[in-house]
Amino acid sequence: MTEDWLNKVNWARDGLVPAIAQEAGTGKVLMVGWMNREALSKTVQSGEAVYWSRSRKKLWRKGEESGHVQRVKSIRLDCDEDVILLEVEQVGGIACHTGRYSCFFRKLDGEQWVVTDPVVKDPRDIYEK
Amino acid sequence: MTEDWLNKVNWARDGLVPAIAQEAGTGKVLMVGWMNREALSKTVQSGEAVYWSRSRKKLWRKGEESGHVQRVKSIRLDCDEDVILLEVEQVGGIACHTGRYSCFFRKLDGEQWVVTDPVVKDPRDIYEK
Repeated sequence: MTEDWLNKVNWARDGLVPAIAQEAGTGKVLMVGWMNREALSKTVQSGEAVYWSRSRKKLWRKGEESGHVQRVKSIRLDCDEDVILLEVEQVGGIACHTGRYSCFFRKLDGEQWVVTDPVVKDPRDIYEK
Repeated sequence: MTEDWLNKVNWARDGLVPAIAQEAGTGKVLMVGWMNREALSKTVQSGEAVYWSRSRKKLWRKGEESGHVQRVKSIRLDCDEDVILLEVEQVGGIACHTGRYSCFFRKLDGEQWVVTDPVVKDPRDIYEK
C-alpha cells in the first residue's frame, strides 16, 4: 500500500485531524474523534474505526472495551484536507461512553445545555466486566 | 445574557473547538469550522453561523462574501463538551468555497481520494463581484 493518500491529508502540527463518525442510513452524527496517520491507516486496513485518544495518548480501536465498534462504510475528506468524515454502522447502537446513542445529547435551549437523549445502557454494564 | 453556557464549553488551549454544520432535513454534513467564545456567542445572538478563521485569524460570518449564510436551527454539544454540532439551513445550497454543496466532496476509493461531487457554481462567480 502506498502512502500517497495518507500524505494528502493536511495533518495538524500535533499530527492529528478531527474525524466525524456519521451513522449510515440515519445520517446522525454520533461522535467526533481524532486521528493520526496510523489511526487512519488502521481504520482503512481493518474496516473499523480506530482513533487516537488525546487523553490516553494512544491508539484506540473504538469499541475495544465496550464492543461498540464502528464498521466503516466510506471515508471522506474535506476541501482543506484537514477533517475526515466516516460513514459508519454503529454496532450496539451506542456510540457514547455515557451509554447514549450519540455523543451530541445536549442541546442549547435559551442559555442552558439541556440533555435531550436518554442513557440506553448504564456505562457500568458496558465497561465493567 | 449570562455566560454560564459559554463556560460549559471545554475550549482548547487556543480557545477554539470544532463546529460541525449539518444540513437540516437531509442530515448531510456540510463543513467543519472552528469557533471561539465570541463566534459561538455571535452565532446564538444572530441565529447565523459565525466561525473563527484560523488562517485569517479573525471572526468570519459564514456567507459574508458569498451570501451563503447558514441559518442555525439548533446547537448541540458533545459529551466531552469540546465539539459543537450546528443544525443549519444552508442558503444558496452551497457550503464550500469551491462552489460545491458540501466540503466533503472527496471519497477514499482504494488508495485514492476521488472527487464525487460537482461544482455547482464557479467560485469566481461567487466571490468576484
